[in-house]
Amino acid sequence: MTYDGYFKKAIDSLHAEKRYRIFADLERIAGSYPKAIYRGGGGPREVTVWCSNDYLGMGEHPKVLDALSKTSGALGATAGGTRNISGTSHPIIELEQELADLHGKEAAIVFSSGFVSNDATLSTLGKLLPGVLMISDEWNHASMIEGIRRSGAEKRIFRHNDVAHLEEILQAEPIDRLKVIAFESIYSMDGDVAPISEICDLAERYNAFTYIDEVHAVGMYGERGGGVSEQMGEAHRLDIIEGTLAKAFGTFGGYIAASSDVVDAVRSYAPGFIFTTALPPAIAAAAATSIRHLKTSDTERRQHKERVVETRSLLDSMGLPVMPSDTHILPVFVGDPELCKSASDLLLKAFDIYVQPINYPTVPRGTERLRITPAPYHSIDDVEALARALYATWQHLGLPLFKYPAPTKAPGLAAPFPVHRAGG
Amino acid sequence: MTYDGYFKKAIDSLHAEKRYRIFADLERIAGSYPKAIYRGGGGPREVTVWCSNDYLGMGEHPKVLDALSKTSGALGATAGGTRNISGTSHPIIELEQELADLHGKEAAIVFSSGFVSNDATLSTLGKLLPGVLMISDEWNHASMIEGIRRSGAEKRIFRHNDVAHLEEILQAEPIDRLKVIAFESIYSMDGDVAPISEICDLAERYNAFTYIDEVHAVGMYGERGGGVSEQMGEAHRLDIIEGTLAKAFGTFGGYIAASSDVVDAVRSYAPGFIFTTALPPAIAAAAATSIRHLKTSDTERRQHKERVVETRSLLDSMGLPVMPSDTHILPVFVGDPELCKSASDLLLKAFDIYVQPINYPTVPRGTERLRITPAPYHSIDDVEALARALYATWQHLGLPLFKYPAPTKAPGLAAPFPVHRAGG
Repeated sequence: MTYDGYFKKAIDSLHAEKRYRIFADLERIAGSYPKAIYRGGGGPREVTVWCSNDYLGMGEHPKVLDALSKTSGALGATAGGTRNISGTSHPIIELEQELADLHGKEAAIVFSSGFVSNDATLSTLGKLLPGVLMISDEWNHASMIEGIRRSGAEKRIFRHNDVAHLEEILQAEPIDRLKVIAFESIYSMDGDVAPISEICDLAERYNAFTYIDEVHAVGMYGERGGGVSEQMGEAHRLDIIEGTLAKAFGTFGGYIAASSDVVDAVRSYAPGFIFTTALPPAIAAAAATSIRHLKTSDTERRQHKERVVETRSLLDSMGLPVMPSDTHILPVFVGDPELCKSASDLLLKAFDIYVQPINYPTVPRGTERLRITPAPYHSIDDVEALARALYATWQHLGLPLFKYPAPTKAPGLAAPFPVHRAGG
Repeated sequence: MTYDGYFKKAIDSLHAEKRYRIFADLERIAGSYPKAIYRGGGGPREVTVWCSNDYLGMGEHPKVLDALSKTSGALGATAGGTRNISGTSHPIIELEQELADLHGKEAAIVFSSGFVSNDATLSTLGKLLPGVLMISDEWNHASMIEGIRRSGAEKRIFRHNDVAHLEEILQAEPIDRLKVIAFESIYSMDGDVAPISEICDLAERYNAFTYIDEVHAVGMYGERGGGVSEQMGEAHRLDIIEGTLAKAFGTFGGYIAASSDVVDAVRSYAPGFIFTTALPPAIAAAAATSIRHLKTSDTERRQHKERVVETRSLLDSMGLPVMPSDTHILPVFVGDPELCKSASDLLLKAFDIYVQPINYPTVPRGTERLRITPAPYHSIDDVEALARALYATWQHLGLPLFKYPAPTKAPGLAAPFPVHRAGG
């Protein structure tokens, strides 16, 4: 076979499995969140986005846009180098101080993305801690899985959020063996929350180091937006808190916050941090502005939570199968990749509503879903329009209305066995 | 030892080896390239930067800043999701078309960074091409090394730019075995150029797939800024051309350009592409503006080359050991990590000139150097001030003046054995 043949074959298999992805061409309209222009055929038209990870709309906040524009005007569009070679700008230093303060840690460092933060940090931990055992929640994000794999360290997987299973694994190891427990605070495709306190208890009892991914929580939870760890009063017990600037903070990039020594060691040894251009100063300034705003303003968080409750309750009342979630993430169960795609297509075509289908490998086969993320700026009219459109789509496609999980054996309702569960 | 102990130990070993890095806090002044405000103690003051990778100053170009500011004002500060989940903006689609056109390829895709482009693409090639042999130049960038390692594929290293050695490796394999030759067009720490035509000849003769990293060349070489491959008329013979938006294009992010099938397969299978937030629309628009400008404007390239020639010839004439380089990268040999750091410190302190010391692991021990990158906007006065300051620094530190390589056995002048040779 030719080289081309192998690439074609790889693509063909996606088509055959009905999971070939077509990206929707969207142009957001700043100041009109959640509206965007969709250019997917039939001429550009305005749609309502219901699946953005700009959870609080901070990516359109005037203060954030002002910081971005002013800083690029003053300092330019690029860092111009790696952190070590002329790329450390004053705004990125201020951003790192803001992040350390947000999580009550001594220090923080910024990476190109949340993916890179996890990948670079976990792989480096594996190298700096001799003989370390990586203990990873089975639903951890693809970037954590990649980082742990790259570390070359031995790995054990504990059943999702199962502290008894985690304890079994810890108990089986010598107390003085180095161990990293890696988990997320909010799991992005189901919206459930980790038992952070219990995991910290176990880490103390069994001498383990804790690594938490808070990307779906920072900005939105905790009194100052420090995430679920802040809300639960557990931030000080976590060794590394990883987060993103690209979701609730509405900009771009990722980070870790930890002790000075941990940050200094990762900064000094992680190729994914060392050998890459630093974040543009303007993005750093915009992110710092967003974080500062959310440290004191509770308006966005309050309104966000209200909109989530309203949306869930309306969808529930119409019999739509909203999957259980303790957070702002509302997955609506479909259970089939083609129907999931059809539902998304119909919502867009007939109702000008954009919700991406979530299929394998992002979620396990048989648990395909629409993942709805209400934002503070969805109006009550938007919520009602969404509910009506979903109901009509369900009717049109012959999808069942039921309270999830269904009491009877509906097809594809087996206990979810996760594959990636990572936004993508 | 406690967890902290291991991190402290890792940092201590850097101090002991005199390669602990302190990042310079810089604030560039847009429109006054190469000037920046330095805040490293003794109060903020203006310095001249001589080591930026914003090679052509495009990061301060009014058109680029205008695109960044206008697009963020119109579309917001963030993509708001992964490419698949609401993060594909219209500007990123236009950017990808611009990049495909730049390299005369069917398609292109954008990644979070050049590092991620290499890492994600090479690791995915290793997975899509069964039994593939990765054949890698020994000076390849850290991100290529990481991507090849992550691919899990068998790897062979050929001596830097040595086509005879490359042929030996190819010859030893069955003709129908899949093989990827991965190399760079310009090697960033030495400024030398790959024998692209000869490598393409070998690839054709021995049925290999070619992957070239053009990050230090795009924008600067070729009639439209398509890199060394365009300049040599070889772009059409290369299967994948990888580049960055964060050096000569003055913004942020990385990309590959290739056939539609290759791009589609990488887009569909690379976790580092799938599970990460897309580049902000404003950064995409700024990058596209920069690329479009450099496709037609030759002013920056011409002036850049003139300034490089002037700088090299002045430093040469003063007896400073400029290492051989075919490109815009002018390494000045020091050969000792402490002296290299001292030279950089003195230039900054006494002459307000910022050039980062380049020590191990970025270059091999014994080949420590100052890496100077002249830009179109360095004035003749800047060049003369640099030459005088370097000369005075050499005198002050007792560094030898000689034409590199030295005719006699100077310490540390053994044939360079590379370790990373990756900007960082």
